Order: sequence, then C-alpha cells, then structure tokens
Amino acid sequence: MKKVVVIGGGTGNFAVLSGLKKFDIDLCAIVSMADDGGSTGILRDELGVLPPGDVRQCLVALSDSSRLMRSLMNYRFETGGLGGHSFGNLLLSALEKVTGSFDRSVEEAGKILSIKGKVIPVTTNKVSLKMVLNNNQILEGEREIDISKEVDQGFRSIYLEPYPKAHPSAISQIMNADLIVLSPGDLYTSLIPNLLVEGISEALKETKAKKVFIVNLMNKNGHTTNFKASDYLREIKRFIGRDVFDYILISNSQPSPKLVSIYAEEGSQVENDLTADGRAISADVLSTELKEVQNADIQRNLIRHDPAKLAEVLMKIVTDL
Amino acid sequence: MKKVVVIGGGTGNFAVLSGLKKFDIDLCAIVSMADDGGSTGILRDELGVLPPGDVRQCLVALSDSSRLMRSLMNYRFETGGLGGHSFGNLLLSALEKVTGSFDRSVEEAGKILSIKGKVIPVTTNKVSLKMVLNNNQILEGEREIDISKEVDQGFRSIYLEPYPKAHPSAISQIMNADLIVLSPGDLYTSLIPNLLVEGISEALKETKAKKVFIVNLMNKNGHTTNFKASDYLREIKRFIGRDVFDYILISNSQPSPKLVSIYAEEGSQVENDLTADGRAISADVLSTELKEVQNADIQRNLIRHDPAKLAEVLMKIVTDL
Repeated sequence: MKKVVVIGGGTGNFAVLSGLKKFDIDLCAIVSMADDGGSTGILRDELGVLPPGDVRQCLVALSDSSRLMRSLMNYRFETGGLGGHSFGNLLLSALEKVTGSFDRSVEEAGKILSIKGKVIPVTTNKVSLKMVLNNNQILEGEREIDISKEVDQGFRSIYLEPYPKAHPSAISQIMNADLIVLSPGDLYTSLIPNLLVEGISEALKETKAKKVFIVNLMNKNGHTTNFKASDYLREIKRFIGRDVFDYILISNSQPSPKLVSIYAEEGSQVENDLTADGRAISADVLSTELKEVQNADIQRNLIRHDPAKLAEVLMKIVTDL
Repeated sequence: MKKVVVIGGGTGNFAVLSGLKKFDIDLCAIVSMADDGGSTGILRDELGVLPPGDVRQCLVALSDSSRLMRSLMNYRFETGGLGGHSFGNLLLSALEKVTGSFDRSVEEAGKILSIKGKVIPVTTNKVSLKMVLNNNQILEGEREIDISKEVDQGFRSIYLEPYPKAHPSAISQIMNADLIVLSPGDLYTSLIPNLLVEGISEALKETKAKKVFIVNLMNKNGHTTNFKASDYLREIKRFIGRDVFDYILISNSQPSPKLVSIYAEEGSQVENDLTADGRAISADVLSTELKEVQNADIQRNLIRHDPAKLAEVLMKIVTDL
C-alpha cells in the first residue's frame, strides 16, 4: 500500500485528507502546532495544553464515524464561559490532561473518531510563532501574524520559539513516504510553521518520496498580496532550502465573478505563471458546492478546493509511482 | 433475561449499576433530573440544556469502555473559564445542542461509552426542585435544598416546577420490570425528586415487579438527622402513597470507629430498626476499599456501598424471581 503524507495546517489539510481518505492508501497527516488564536489560544493559556485546533480538523477529515460525531467535534459552544470553544478542542485538551500526553490524546481521539490513517503533530514542544517585520516590529504569536496587514512589506525573520524538535514519527513518516503533499493554506501561518521545526526541511530534502505542492486558489491581502504561483514556490523553497517538488498542482478553473468580487477585499486569485514548468499540473480542482459545510473554519472559504477533485489528481500520481 | 430497573440520583445509582452491569440481566437506570449545582447548574444556566451530571454518572457506571474513557468522562477541568466542568457533562450538553434532544444525547453518549443497558432521564422537562419549609422559607433549586441545614425541622411541601411528565420509556420500563431497585442516595434531593414526576409513583404502585429499597448507610445532618431505617421507608411511602417494597436491604457491617468519627459532623449511621420486618435483608454490603476512586463525586463518601456486594444480594433476589 502506498504511503502518502500530507503536511499543512488544519484547514488546508482538511480538503486533501477528506478526499484521500476514501482511497486504499496508507495516509498520514503532519500538522502545524503554532496555532494560538480563538478557542485553541484560550485552552493553551488557561490549561497549558498543546494547541488542539488544527489536529482536530485533521481528525475530523480522516474520521470514518457518523456525521453526528463529526458535527459534534466541530460544534462550538455559543454562550457563557464555554462560548467559542469547539467540542473537539475540549476533547483533545481533556484527553491530554487525563493521559498526560498530547500524543496519546491524539491517538485516543483518533480511536473515538475511527480515523483512517494517522495524525501526527509536527512537534509536541510548546512553541510560539514569531515574526520580525522589516520595520523591526515584532509580531508575537500566530494570531497576531495572521491579522497583520504588513507582512507583505517584508520581514526579517519568522521562527518558532523555543526552537522545537520534530516529532520523531513525523520524520520517519516523511522518510518512508511514497508521496508527500504540501497542502494549500495560509503560507506564513499554516504551511511554513511546519518547515520551521528542526528536522522537517532536512527530511524533505533527504526523502526519496515524490513531492507535490498544491498552490492556493486565493491570495491573502497583507500577506501574499498579488502572489503568483511562482511566488509561493519561491517562499516555500527559501525555508526548505531547495526546490524539492516533483509536481505543482494549480487550479485551472474560474470561480464565478460574483464570488471573486466578494473576495476582492480579502485577496485576489493566484495567477498561474508556471505553465512552462514541466512539473505543473493544471487541473479543475475547484469546489462548486456552495451549500454550507459543517466545518465552521471552512465555511468562510467559499472559493475552495474540492476534496474529490484533489484526490483524483493526487491518486493519479500515486498510481503512477 | 430478567429486567432490572434502578431508580435514583447519579451517585446513588453508581454503586448499584456498576455492580449489576457484570451480570446477564436487562438493566435500565432511571435518573433524577433535578440537579442544578456545580458544573451541571452552570450548563443549565448558560446553555439552557438539561442537567447532565446524574446521567453522566450512570453512563460511566454502565460503561464497558476502557478505564481511560471512564476517567475522561469524569475529568474535571481545573482552571480558567472551563474550571469545574466535567468533560462528560460537556459531552452530553454538546450532544444535546447538536442533536437538538437530550434523549438522543444520552443515547449517543451511551454508544460512545459502550454502555450495557439503558439510561433514561425520569423526565425531559426542564424542572426546578422547590421546598417550602415549615417556617415558610422557600428553598429554590436542588443545590439550595442540598446545603440547607433546616430540612429536618420539617417542610410543608417539596415539588418540581413546572410539574413534569415522566419520560414514556421510564413508565414502560417500570411496568415491564421484573425487579425495581430504589438506590441509596440523598433522600430529598436524589430519591424523592424521581417520585415527584407525574406518573412515576402510579407506575410503582401498579407494576407487578418486585421492589427493593436499599437503605442509606449514613444520615445527612439537617436533612435526615438521626433517621432510622423505618424513617426512610416512611418518607418514601409518603411520596409513593403506599409501602410498595418487597425487600428492604440494610447493611449489617460496622465501619471503623475512625471513619464514623470523621463522618460525625456530616451525619450518624442509619440504625436498623426493621429487624422484625419480614422484608428486611440484613447483609454485608459495606465497601472496605479505602483507596481513591476515579469518580470525584463518590470520592467524598468513604463509608459507601460495595458494588459487588450489593450486586450479589440483588442477583440472589433476581434468581429467585
């Protein structure tokens, strides 16, 4: 059975994982651990636990349990002292407290949710994402970076503090994979935080696995304003240290002008300037579903990847390996 | 397979249910829904859900899942906005929100916990327990009654408001039972609230099932100060309207003088003044285990019933039916 490793943040991983889980492959999600906003941030601060939010989304994506169980995991309490917390985050935090280990917590939550495959936090060190902008302003925490509109003015450095070691299983999964997928997602707050963990970039350079980069559909103003596909690739390369990708997957379909205009304030479409690159796969991977989805974090993204279409392209690559 | 129905509050039911679940019987717990203290009270107030605490304890008692899952259900968050909430209460409340029904929530939580048997809330109406003391003071809510030290001075009335209808399954379970067990527990706040629900006392009078009353080990000062076994029986009879019991199970073992003295402020031992009553079964049903137990609500009761010993006596009755 082919081993496929998917790397990203929670939301980015969601579409890729929920598409791939239907196929007969050995699937593993490696998840960023830099989140510190919302429910996750409060749990980190108040309970001293590791950030559950991104892991929760991957678990739900891989879950084979009932729709009800998946809705439960993403259910957010609306009022009172619990207001804003998603139930799945509370499950992971309570399990971490009861077992004394985040690793064990993810494993047990995986059993409760009957997940297909594995979810591995990229590190189990407690880390904070920091960014020093060109104007010397220091942004502390993923949330602060996420809402900044000045990241596109350039930054001197981005790093995790304290400098974390990779989860040993994350390294071995990367080394033993047949295919590695870098999911779409926020470049500086979902994707790159994985590459800032000691050992991850090295493993990505050393592994014999084929590697696919899935380019975002939309830019994020203030972060990746007017980025083209090549800009994403360049930024990722800076952090890995080499352009390691064998395939670059870029959407070739056009969302409706109405949706594009709704998104104008948030960001423009990512232009495909890599048509001449032999590695580029141009495919229809856009979701046309407009109905509400259960996952509140994805609900805001109406222009998004279609899990089944993504999986179809990725499985063609897997079959050819 | 013999049908055994156990009626009580959460803690009282716990020992009976966890003992009986090991036997090959059709087991059903009917649970009081008057709780409004602690985590349960906050969830009622802030989320508008039905009280999960007592149901949670019964689910844990009947659970066949791992020790870890049971610890998780009883895990209480210690700090921050979640402080004081038990995870199992949050599970039941989130499930109620997601399914729109407390009934369904209990059913789904039962599946997650692989329970043996059924747990049925005595009513799914939202109720508040009230008591009017002889001095005309009105105690509002189970918690307020629970902490009052004047209940033993006499009360004019105790009632649920608004007057609730029994869960239809509670009635049919009582009517179709072979044996009904009234668990030990706080008389006015755990046991009698079940009898205040429309239809329950009538069903207890009509059913052909045999009925066992398990007398408390210890009195509760300010409530059942210096009660003897016959006083408990008399109070229960007042609410059912007739003395319906076929068996009265009373402990015949003596806790250590040290434990009795620790408990002196809380209450005295219940004296067995029913030795001449042909229905009385005097047996060693006292727990000698002093080690800490997982269930925080039971932890405070060091003089408590032993689940296995209770079950042994009850199963003798079942076998003779």
